[in-house]
Amino acid sequence: MSASKAKKQLLESFSRTTDEIFSLNEFEELIDSKKKIRIKYGVDVTSPYLHIGHAVNLWMMRELQDLGHKVVFLIGDFTTQIGDPTGRNNTRPIIPQSEIDKNAEEFIRQAKMVLRFDDPDLLEVRRNSEWFSKYQLSEFLKLLSMVTHSRLISRDMFQRRIKNQEDIYLHEMIYPILQGYDSYVLESDLTIIGSDQLFNEMLGRFYQQRFGQKPQVIITTKITQGIDGKAKQSKSLDNYIGLGHSSRDKFGRCMKVPDELIMDYLKIYTKVPKEEISMIEKEVANDPMKWKKFLAEEIIKRYHDEASARSEREWFENTFSKKITPEDIPTIEVGGSQWIAIDLVNKYFDNSKSSSEVRRLFKQGAVSVNGENIPLFDANIAIVTGDVVKVGKRNWFKIKIVGN
Amino acid sequence: MSASKAKKQLLESFSRTTDEIFSLNEFEELIDSKKKIRIKYGVDVTSPYLHIGHAVNLWMMRELQDLGHKVVFLIGDFTTQIGDPTGRNNTRPIIPQSEIDKNAEEFIRQAKMVLRFDDPDLLEVRRNSEWFSKYQLSEFLKLLSMVTHSRLISRDMFQRRIKNQEDIYLHEMIYPILQGYDSYVLESDLTIIGSDQLFNEMLGRFYQQRFGQKPQVIITTKITQGIDGKAKQSKSLDNYIGLGHSSRDKFGRCMKVPDELIMDYLKIYTKVPKEEISMIEKEVANDPMKWKKFLAEEIIKRYHDEASARSEREWFENTFSKKITPEDIPTIEVGGSQWIAIDLVNKYFDNSKSSSEVRRLFKQGAVSVNGENIPLFDANIAIVTGDVVKVGKRNWFKIKIVGN
Repeated sequence: MSASKAKKQLLESFSRTTDEIFSLNEFEELIDSKKKIRIKYGVDVTSPYLHIGHAVNLWMMRELQDLGHKVVFLIGDFTTQIGDPTGRNNTRPIIPQSEIDKNAEEFIRQAKMVLRFDDPDLLEVRRNSEWFSKYQLSEFLKLLSMVTHSRLISRDMFQRRIKNQEDIYLHEMIYPILQGYDSYVLESDLTIIGSDQLFNEMLGRFYQQRFGQKPQVIITTKITQGIDGKAKQSKSLDNYIGLGHSSRDKFGRCMKVPDELIMDYLKIYTKVPKEEISMIEKEVANDPMKWKKFLAEEIIKRYHDEASARSEREWFENTFSKKITPEDIPTIEVGGSQWIAIDLVNKYFDNSKSSSEVRRLFKQGAVSVNGENIPLFDANIAIVTGDVVKVGKRNWFKIKIVGN
Repeated sequence: MSASKAKKQLLESFSRTTDEIFSLNEFEELIDSKKKIRIKYGVDVTSPYLHIGHAVNLWMMRELQDLGHKVVFLIGDFTTQIGDPTGRNNTRPIIPQSEIDKNAEEFIRQAKMVLRFDDPDLLEVRRNSEWFSKYQLSEFLKLLSMVTHSRLISRDMFQRRIKNQEDIYLHEMIYPILQGYDSYVLESDLTIIGSDQLFNEMLGRFYQQRFGQKPQVIITTKITQGIDGKAKQSKSLDNYIGLGHSSRDKFGRCMKVPDELIMDYLKIYTKVPKEEISMIEKEVANDPMKWKKFLAEEIIKRYHDEASARSEREWFENTFSKKITPEDIPTIEVGGSQWIAIDLVNKYFDNSKSSSEVRRLFKQGAVSVNGENIPLFDANIAIVTGDVVKVGKRNWFKIKIVGN
């Protein structure tokens, strides 16, 4: 493939998931230069989970890796100790190094589903404690002396916290300075980020220029609402499709995506060709369920394989679409046959749901034993081995009575 | 003298020049504790000149030295490199170490007019580069993490600059943090400051408490307007009485003090006993000139000696009060006898006054040769050796024609 064709292909592929780019000209120049591009991928490993939204950025980097460019995977172990205030309304506690190490390991395990970690020419792992742990106040003052207070607090999240009269601690305020300086140290040519990191990475460009380096290109990527159709994906809202989720969970979560988001999910989170996308766009309203399953399969194919995609689809159809009790539901061992209904259900959830959530399920008529609805959470029920309890739309368990 | 009597005397003496104290209880406890008090005296040596306003603080410290307590004279050589933003509307350039050293020397030369530098038990010289030059970013982040943005910008001068949309660079913003931390490192028990330093020293109390130290007592001192009767004394306004001024200059500058400030100057800048002050208070309006001379003498006594005070008074009275040309006026050597009036006067001022200032003197009728007024600055005049030129109230010079 000719260089210009490869470039065209890359730009087209990137345009599918790019929100903004600073600047397109600079990016094209970078590609034309034929240099091996250094892509800074900085992570704050406080909460080591990646969802398909994060993976949009990873897939773009993977595409560059496949062209021979290098991802500089930066574990912000020094800055993580501070805690990135991005999108947070409260101050984060300082995190010990041991936890950071554990989180980093888990983070890499998930990132490996997309990025190539196997070739040092394509990926290098760095930690910003390398330069910051010995960094002196006098050096840091020089960085501070280049930036004004008004510039720093122009950051939207600082503005929001100031407006809401929420405290911003000074160590949080200087987080962007450190993140920006990372780009200079790593000689970053490019970084692909969520738009909430734009301010910090722009400071990266600023410091690179001040220190005589070519400023990195910044690409921010598109984001969608989460599977609840409301806020963007996040762990705390549990409205995300996680790279760490099993293929079965991925399928189930895709099926929760609201109909009006199917097309966005297909465009941003899968590699379905754009011709096919245009075709589906015309059909989706007629049979959203069909295309939701298609979406689920495409996502499982991307992170697992075709066989898993097919078998999860079959399992799903057998279980839910055809309204029969599945063969492979879990068995819960209990001692004794007399139960208060809610206690039995709690056995299954094993404290993963609060008792008010469970009571709500009863109230909604979502709990049954052998098909018979149990409306009251405090009902006395008698059970025997082999009884099937259904809770909500997708939770079943079989009873096995053990002991005396 | 009994301890309680000594304490009473000290409190009475201090009350004369104290504006605020945080807190009086803590200060009394400190005195009662009989411990050797460590008095932090931090100086930013950017501009090494001391005036009698600064010296108010020095005299209070000297009083404590005389009771056996110790002044910790802190040269803020590290922080001076940043530049204290106090009272400044613009960002200060970063100052090289060599200049700081030179300034510190000059500063000490002047401070020695009040403080005892001769006994290491009574005075110790420190520099904050001792701890800050090797201070690490990670340590500094801990200091930052204890203070909120809203607390920091509550400082009046930051508020003023924000309101006026003037830039504050981030290195200036963290100046108070460093100044506060100094108090902890030095284990300061007390600091005596101008009220513009109160915010920073309060942060000192804060850090001392956070690190388990007893917080320093803070005394802020009274200030008066300068000898122009307007702003407080400062070098840039040249409205101050400097410790570095000659006794003659001190006398002359005291004579410029507006009548309504005579009493304040006597109370704050001299040791005239309060009974005498009360007496003068009743008489001052009848003969302000008399009491201004008295003030001048008292100030010269304090920094020089009685003989100088007396002889400067005599010189002044001979020169000005009796309206005769003084014997010891300077001689200016000029080449040639034909002059444009303003050029001749400029010879004397040697560029220390702008030409518009000099033209104004002509316009005011303040220029004369041998007693004859010269109203026009561009008048052609002929002079001979021995002519006496008078400019303004207090500038005379004799002409000596040299060369061809």
